[in-house]
Amino acid sequence: MSQGKKSPNESAPVTGRRRFLNTAALAGLSVGFVGCTDKTAASTSAAPAASGASHGEASSPHLKPGELDTYYGLWSGGHTGDLRVLGLPSGREILRIPCFVPDALVGWGITNESKKIMGTKPDGSLRYTVGDSHHVHASYKDGNYDGRYAWINDKINSRLARIRLDYFVCDKITELPNVQGFHGIFPDKRDPVDPAINYTTRVFCGSEFQIPLPNQGQGTDKTDQYRSMFTCVDAETMEVRWQVLIDGNCDLTATSYDGKLAATNQYNVENGARYEDMMSAERDACLFFNIARIEQAVKDGKFRTVGTSKVPVVDGTRANNADPKTALTAYVSVPKNPHGVNASPDGKYFICAGKLSPTGTVIELAKVLDWFDGKLEKIDQAIVAEVELGLGPLHTAFDGRGNGYTTLFLDSQVVKWNIEAAIKFHAGDKTAKYVLDRIDVQYQPGHVNASQSETVAADGKWLAVGCKFSKDRFLPVGPLHPENEQLIDISGEKMVLAGDHPVRGEPHDFIILKRELLRPKQVYALDDFPLAVKDPKESGVFRSGRKVTVKMTSLAPAFSLREFTVKKGDEVTLILTNLDKVEDLTHGFAIPKYNVNFIVNPLETASVTFIADQPGVFWCYCTHFCHALHLEMRTRMIVEA
Amino acid sequence: MSQGKKSPNESAPVTGRRRFLNTAALAGLSVGFVGCTDKTAASTSAAPAASGASHGEASSPHLKPGELDTYYGLWSGGHTGDLRVLGLPSGREILRIPCFVPDALVGWGITNESKKIMGTKPDGSLRYTVGDSHHVHASYKDGNYDGRYAWINDKINSRLARIRLDYFVCDKITELPNVQGFHGIFPDKRDPVDPAINYTTRVFCGSEFQIPLPNQGQGTDKTDQYRSMFTCVDAETMEVRWQVLIDGNCDLTATSYDGKLAATNQYNVENGARYEDMMSAERDACLFFNIARIEQAVKDGKFRTVGTSKVPVVDGTRANNADPKTALTAYVSVPKNPHGVNASPDGKYFICAGKLSPTGTVIELAKVLDWFDGKLEKIDQAIVAEVELGLGPLHTAFDGRGNGYTTLFLDSQVVKWNIEAAIKFHAGDKTAKYVLDRIDVQYQPGHVNASQSETVAADGKWLAVGCKFSKDRFLPVGPLHPENEQLIDISGEKMVLAGDHPVRGEPHDFIILKRELLRPKQVYALDDFPLAVKDPKESGVFRSGRKVTVKMTSLAPAFSLREFTVKKGDEVTLILTNLDKVEDLTHGFAIPKYNVNFIVNPLETASVTFIADQPGVFWCYCTHFCHALHLEMRTRMIVEA
Repeated sequence: MSQGKKSPNESAPVTGRRRFLNTAALAGLSVGFVGCTDKTAASTSAAPAASGASHGEASSPHLKPGELDTYYGLWSGGHTGDLRVLGLPSGREILRIPCFVPDALVGWGITNESKKIMGTKPDGSLRYTVGDSHHVHASYKDGNYDGRYAWINDKINSRLARIRLDYFVCDKITELPNVQGFHGIFPDKRDPVDPAINYTTRVFCGSEFQIPLPNQGQGTDKTDQYRSMFTCVDAETMEVRWQVLIDGNCDLTATSYDGKLAATNQYNVENGARYEDMMSAERDACLFFNIARIEQAVKDGKFRTVGTSKVPVVDGTRANNADPKTALTAYVSVPKNPHGVNASPDGKYFICAGKLSPTGTVIELAKVLDWFDGKLEKIDQAIVAEVELGLGPLHTAFDGRGNGYTTLFLDSQVVKWNIEAAIKFHAGDKTAKYVLDRIDVQYQPGHVNASQSETVAADGKWLAVGCKFSKDRFLPVGPLHPENEQLIDISGEKMVLAGDHPVRGEPHDFIILKRELLRPKQVYALDDFPLAVKDPKESGVFRSGRKVTVKMTSLAPAFSLREFTVKKGDEVTLILTNLDKVEDLTHGFAIPKYNVNFIVNPLETASVTFIADQPGVFWCYCTHFCHALHLEMRTRMIVEA
Repeated sequence: MSQGKKSPNESAPVTGRRRFLNTAALAGLSVGFVGCTDKTAASTSAAPAASGASHGEASSPHLKPGELDTYYGLWSGGHTGDLRVLGLPSGREILRIPCFVPDALVGWGITNESKKIMGTKPDGSLRYTVGDSHHVHASYKDGNYDGRYAWINDKINSRLARIRLDYFVCDKITELPNVQGFHGIFPDKRDPVDPAINYTTRVFCGSEFQIPLPNQGQGTDKTDQYRSMFTCVDAETMEVRWQVLIDGNCDLTATSYDGKLAATNQYNVENGARYEDMMSAERDACLFFNIARIEQAVKDGKFRTVGTSKVPVVDGTRANNADPKTALTAYVSVPKNPHGVNASPDGKYFICAGKLSPTGTVIELAKVLDWFDGKLEKIDQAIVAEVELGLGPLHTAFDGRGNGYTTLFLDSQVVKWNIEAAIKFHAGDKTAKYVLDRIDVQYQPGHVNASQSETVAADGKWLAVGCKFSKDRFLPVGPLHPENEQLIDISGEKMVLAGDHPVRGEPHDFIILKRELLRPKQVYALDDFPLAVKDPKESGVFRSGRKVTVKMTSLAPAFSLREFTVKKGDEVTLILTNLDKVEDLTHGFAIPKYNVNFIVNPLETASVTFIADQPGVFWCYCTHFCHALHLEMRTRMIVEA
């Protein structure tokens, strides 16, 4: 429930609790806020609990049976390593798309096709089976989602995955060289030079952890020489185009609507290797990249390579980019360990949240471009507002009506504020009331996003908040609690809490799209798969020495082979095409004791390869319910001793 | 919405569509019903669509933000290999418990502790990474759930997992010998002999697929000699107690409230190896096991062993159990390929659903016991009703008021029927109206269960239906559709559809418990873990030759070691204890490029072992959001070249 009555206007500069937090204060916080014991004390605008709040029918997220949601939500799965698709406003999870981590339902990491995408070691086993997906963003055209792709990153192993938004599957994964702690991603929204390219062709990747370059065991004690990089990946080929060596690190990433700039916030300009060091400076930075200049430098051969990587690396360090006329990068100062950088849907501003500072910093894009053009004396003059919002500001979403919604981790709130009013306030008009509303959330919020917030079509209807602790909001289920993705109605003046949605850990970030922007396909085409067995008559066992290929089709309720025989020691490749073309008619294929299971959706083909090392009869069966005779849908693999 | 007006009473014996289906009819169905194109034709009681049905406040499954559910649902995850915990009536998934398949969030299959439970190959890698969990049932005391354990089975690799219901974690997994296609499970509800043992001490396991015994590559062509077994596992030790060799196969499993009998329905008494053969007989069976006699036979040494297994196997085949006075088993005939056997909460009946027959068969427990006592001439006289319910009956739930709720796969309905009325009807009283209501579901339902249905405390409030196709009920997300777990209010005379809950494939079965029956613990005790690092001062790097042990603790926002150094080639065992004891304060631990990530819940200890084969600096970081300085919570692993 909204509780704006007591809070606005914050026109009086704020008390000590809202000043920059120093190390001592944080030591106390580390005990205090995690248990939420001093939440009331930490909040300047104490408010009634939001639970049990009533709300009007207009803001109900509940659907009647059979009603469809009006928005898609694309949710990162965190260290579950997947991308999740939610329907909103219901909050119902309708799909998990495996990316970085195997998935036993699909056979992701089991089939040859998925292993090729995931990457294998020389022995054929998976290179990685863990992941830590963080941020999800989708491809753009003319500033709105075009329904082609989404991208998601893996922080642990510095991988970028692409999702096809027609079939809702991951089709490519790229591992970035020379970096660790790959955190923020954002696609560009158009080309910085060519006006005909009004859609996404690049994905920018920011990396948090500074490391020795190259990282091969030398220079490990010289932490002051550790460095990080910013990476550009081609949206179509998914190859790494270039990297920029920088000072400090990269946390989140954002891009301008005009295609000219990418940005990343930095919480460790100190290049610290200990957390006290990482928070020693009073100001860190928002770092801007001039894309056209970087690509010209690469074209001009002004790059080097690092270690065994062949990727061109240009120099974006502070000292070597002091001249605005030639600079590839611009470091705008931002208070203490900022978290989050977001581009406003009007294309004018980048907003950084202060994390350890209670402030939001508004940076005007036009002024940053002016600096690159030599028209602005100091880059920090691009800061048009720096206003107090509350304790622990992290991320900002937008409603398309000029307002930002910023999560306050320590206050456990979302604050709604008006950007133009904040700019006026910062310029000296102390009557400008920029804080419009606050709402308690349950509990400690991280990422926030609103429907269409990251597009020119921000519609200001729903706000989702990724709360990091759920504590007492759901039935207790032992030590591991679900996260709480709360939904807030932002269509009116006041924010209204609409629902609690528990999710498996740990969604970091998400986007919310109007459903009409995606055009999914429910049935594959046989020709999508080069190995397709297009007719049951092509089924059979084909031997070439010790290599055996088994070709099979499925058509409910039977596989095309009643049995097949191989010899102990054979290398068997089994290819299965599902000839059922009815929507939703998926089959599974499991081989007991052989660690094989995968599914084939309508007209999909998948294959597995294994050594037939155990003799006997193995009943392969359909694992995905398909028919009244589903249980009877089997084939026998006979492995002769 | 309920549509009972046109359907009752079915007092006139039913039309041709409700007769036993033969092979020819199924050939047509295999095309027809999957697309639901002839659903209307297949349904004798055409009814308005249920979607958009209005319902009263009493039957709303919607909770206000912060409100808690009143029931736990324990849901099988199918070929996702997990057990899921839902809150009901909201249908919200609040936990996934990894069992048979690795889980990247928890580190299940990554930590040494979880690998020990899952089972490894000689090289230390996981024995299996796929699973197909089917049925979930919980431990009993005095006929109701006692909150100690749940069990879940893996069909692919014949494994039984136990879940501790205090911490909601899997603590033991047992692989059954001599069987394939382990399908049904059910715990006993008390001891058949000792009245003091009024709680669960056994878990019964039914296996579907007949195989050569032993299955080592000989006799693979003699399909008529393939056999299946029924297995008993000790509920505490999780060791296999005994097995029973049988004719036919085992599908689902049920147990009597008096502890004396276990039952399994058989869809393949033909011992067929092809699906036409599996459905050639007009009647299959419900097979009963006399537990006390079986255990006496084992005690008397009347058993053999099979292959390398040491498990006692007694003879339960039909020919060798013809004498009721000594029989270990009793084969009650049931129409054509039954699916599902369920024990009514009054303890009196077992009900089999016909699948390929439109009937439900009611078997009276007392009469089966009479047969074993020589008081009933023919075992089929234990059948007290066999009545038509609709097309494709699969499973039956109960409301504690004498009614059964049976899913009709082909009719896409749930039918509510009165058991005593059905018995009267079967006895000749054609005025007895046993069908009370029907409701359309979306679409093709499999398992069904009602709140507390499998206990003496069946309360008849909510019914959940596992629908196998969801088609148009949710936003399209490509070829793989979610399953639709529908919720129905059964508190009144008429069933009322309350909600559609999409879930990731593929829940098979589930139970619904009153929340007060579980007593979860949210924080571990340090002493739960023998390797616990109880004080940060115990942290350090301890070397023994090439084996290195790294001991560490976590306390937000820092690990106890800022860095640690090992040498390339070392075998490193890292032990991490989370000293944060605040509820919900979980930390993660990831090592880039080393394929390591796991979590430690409050006061939990976990360990990993790996070879330090890549030199360089590797920033280990907390993957589970914990604190405002979560991003800064890192330690450096330095691997010297």
